[in-house]
Amino acid sequence: MCQLLGMNCNVPTDICFSFEGFSARGGKTDDHSDGWGIAFFEGKGCRLFLDAKPSIDSPLAELVRRYPIHSTHVIAHIRKATQGKIALENCHPFRRELWGRYWVFAHNGNLPDFHPENHGIFQPVGDTDSEKAFCLILNTLRNNFPKGKPPLRLLYPVLREITAELGSLGIFNYLLSDGEHFFTHCSTKLCYIIRQAPFAAAHLIDEEMTVDFSELTTPSDRVAVIATTPLTDNEFWTPIQPGEILVFQDGLPINFE
Amino acid sequence: MCQLLGMNCNVPTDICFSFEGFSARGGKTDDHSDGWGIAFFEGKGCRLFLDAKPSIDSPLAELVRRYPIHSTHVIAHIRKATQGKIALENCHPFRRELWGRYWVFAHNGNLPDFHPENHGIFQPVGDTDSEKAFCLILNTLRNNFPKGKPPLRLLYPVLREITAELGSLGIFNYLLSDGEHFFTHCSTKLCYIIRQAPFAAAHLIDEEMTVDFSELTTPSDRVAVIATTPLTDNEFWTPIQPGEILVFQDGLPINFE
Repeated sequence: MCQLLGMNCNVPTDICFSFEGFSARGGKTDDHSDGWGIAFFEGKGCRLFLDAKPSIDSPLAELVRRYPIHSTHVIAHIRKATQGKIALENCHPFRRELWGRYWVFAHNGNLPDFHPENHGIFQPVGDTDSEKAFCLILNTLRNNFPKGKPPLRLLYPVLREITAELGSLGIFNYLLSDGEHFFTHCSTKLCYIIRQAPFAAAHLIDEEMTVDFSELTTPSDRVAVIATTPLTDNEFWTPIQPGEILVFQDGLPINFE
Repeated sequence: MCQLLGMNCNVPTDICFSFEGFSARGGKTDDHSDGWGIAFFEGKGCRLFLDAKPSIDSPLAELVRRYPIHSTHVIAHIRKATQGKIALENCHPFRRELWGRYWVFAHNGNLPDFHPENHGIFQPVGDTDSEKAFCLILNTLRNNFPKGKPPLRLLYPVLREITAELGSLGIFNYLLSDGEHFFTHCSTKLCYIIRQAPFAAAHLIDEEMTVDFSELTTPSDRVAVIATTPLTDNEFWTPIQPGEILVFQDGLPINFE
């Protein structure tokens, strides 16, 4: 299966450190080598880098590791194909526009018995279960709120219901964002860490690399990093509970339960 | 205003040579320095690189100049802002999904009196006239053909009508593609060249650079390059007539008139 990496912050932050460790899993420390992708929101704009090559061999991934793009909402994915051939159109994250905002989605898992009829507005371009699930989520949101994005308290129950429906079909960990809210769903495996003052040093699991965040931050910075499995070995990562959708904003989870 | 560069080929080809000259106009040989972007179709997949920085200063543009991405449909744009602030969400090309295919659009011109009401499915994320026009085109296509992409002979008159309507509001040169067909509309300025056997050397206008295509091609290769103004000074570029929509496929225009 695949792996997920997400970041949500209160000020635009680069993801170079976390992506260094994460992208090593795309063929070096792990075997997720069937493509990768990363999306950065910058205001309402959104950049998406995709490659069907392993992230350790990709000149694009090298650029993302070296070129600090500052963003408040980042979603990254390394792929180990379950459904759908190795091809650009099957690389996550997927992006669509809904209500005049870009929506970005990446999935870790497998929905073996998911064969929806594509009668909605949003239709898959590739042939993964993941993109089909994303289209179903967006079609459901749009059908419930045709006029525009509703307040989160109205959107959340609709998202929870369609997520539960999809989650009943298999493994369905995902990251979803429109650049305003950052949704994370744990089906089997997803964890997060909040970095805030007092900042300390962090050491990667997948690369021999340490960063002292106290040298790079201001006291008001707050960064949530969400990943399939912890990226560092000297910090405590909080597991998200199976069945839970955590919504992050400004680097903190908002709890609806 | 902005400048456009497009490429349509019968086999996947890299655009490094043309992009070298074109991107020099983003702040070096010309002043289109308010952002740039380029989209590459690879099969049904589509990669989009965007940057609000001038193309001559952008590490991303440097990567695109150096890293040969092979594609049959490429659309690039360098921006000199007329409407909409300098921001990522206002960089062309814009991309949406319609009928399970990605559609990509870039515009050169200005539609000063274009203020549509946004009641369609496709809505602009940024605040350019260009993205609004793109959304109106896609909404019009979808409203006329809700079930899927029709044959070109049915799609073409609908596209021609909405294009004429938009073109009556100002300057509206554009490139539009879904990775199958490559639509080019000339309102005031757009030209193209077909490179095919026997291939020869070409010399850029904007950089001291010559490429001998006979060394890089096979006899069956065919490449159409479309640009706001010619990119080379030793080849003949054919002007597209104002009001004309040329559709390219496999490196050749299909003429519907």
